[in-house]
Amino acid sequence: MAITIRPAVAEDVPQILEFIRALAKYEREPDAVTATEADLLRDGFGPTPYYWCLIAEQDGAPAGFALCFFSYSTWLGRAGVYLEDLFVLPEFRGLGIGKALLKRVATIAVEKDCPRLGWEVLDWNTPAIDFYRAMGAEFLDSWRNVRVTGDALIRLAGAEEPAL
Amino acid sequence: MAITIRPAVAEDVPQILEFIRALAKYEREPDAVTATEADLLRDGFGPTPYYWCLIAEQDGAPAGFALCFFSYSTWLGRAGVYLEDLFVLPEFRGLGIGKALLKRVATIAVEKDCPRLGWEVLDWNTPAIDFYRAMGAEFLDSWRNVRVTGDALIRLAGAEEPAL
Repeated sequence: MAITIRPAVAEDVPQILEFIRALAKYEREPDAVTATEADLLRDGFGPTPYYWCLIAEQDGAPAGFALCFFSYSTWLGRAGVYLEDLFVLPEFRGLGIGKALLKRVATIAVEKDCPRLGWEVLDWNTPAIDFYRAMGAEFLDSWRNVRVTGDALIRLAGAEEPAL
Repeated sequence: MAITIRPAVAEDVPQILEFIRALAKYEREPDAVTATEADLLRDGFGPTPYYWCLIAEQDGAPAGFALCFFSYSTWLGRAGVYLEDLFVLPEFRGLGIGKALLKRVATIAVEKDCPRLGWEVLDWNTPAIDFYRAMGAEFLDSWRNVRVTGDALIRLAGAEEPAL
């Protein structure tokens, strides 16, 4: 049994989208994915990529992925790595593939002089929370996540400005 | 009284660092800022910037700032805007400057086809929470923020891999 982890290439986009859909289903939001292969190709493999991705394979079969982008810490004055998605297909769990993916992401962060690796986890996802804690993660529970999307974002953009 | 909002330029770096320090003090972490002017110059105004920044001025005096980077939504297949810092100096509060900064960030997000604007707020910061809610924001309280930093990150990067 051989687990390999490698950077994703453009040809992986269909598989990446399959992973994204499988993760959304696991996160109880199966209909939330509207991304297309064209979107992922444009945003990950064009001249100014918005994300980067690692693929885990077991004996050549796609087993999981990690998808990241660079954040920024104004306190530290350094870019950080933000782990948007980490997922291992159910039939490949328990083999250390998630740990290997997380470790590789951490290695890339250290190599790139990023002192911070961050992500989010759903509060009911106890197995993931326990796993992350065992990996040395801390939970920043005094920070609430805020978001403006869709029509609310358009309304905000068009809101009355104060006298300018 | 004239409020203006403009993109930051390299010459604003000393002022940006002052804003960052003032915000950290407000967030009860005055000693957390280790960033230097050289860090902010390299990361915001070099060939591949990690962040971008808006400066608010009132009658030419620096009054506040918004500092952002691009996130990525794998569900939507689109980059998003992440608002790392939003701050108005105490003496300029109550004039609509925070709203004008947030609105400008939202406008940039819409212009760049980013369907999501996200940020974090401390759970005790009730004035900010009320303000964000009034701006149409939603709070994603089922998502916990997770982080690995410093020595824990280096340990994770160097952790034993499973048989590869």
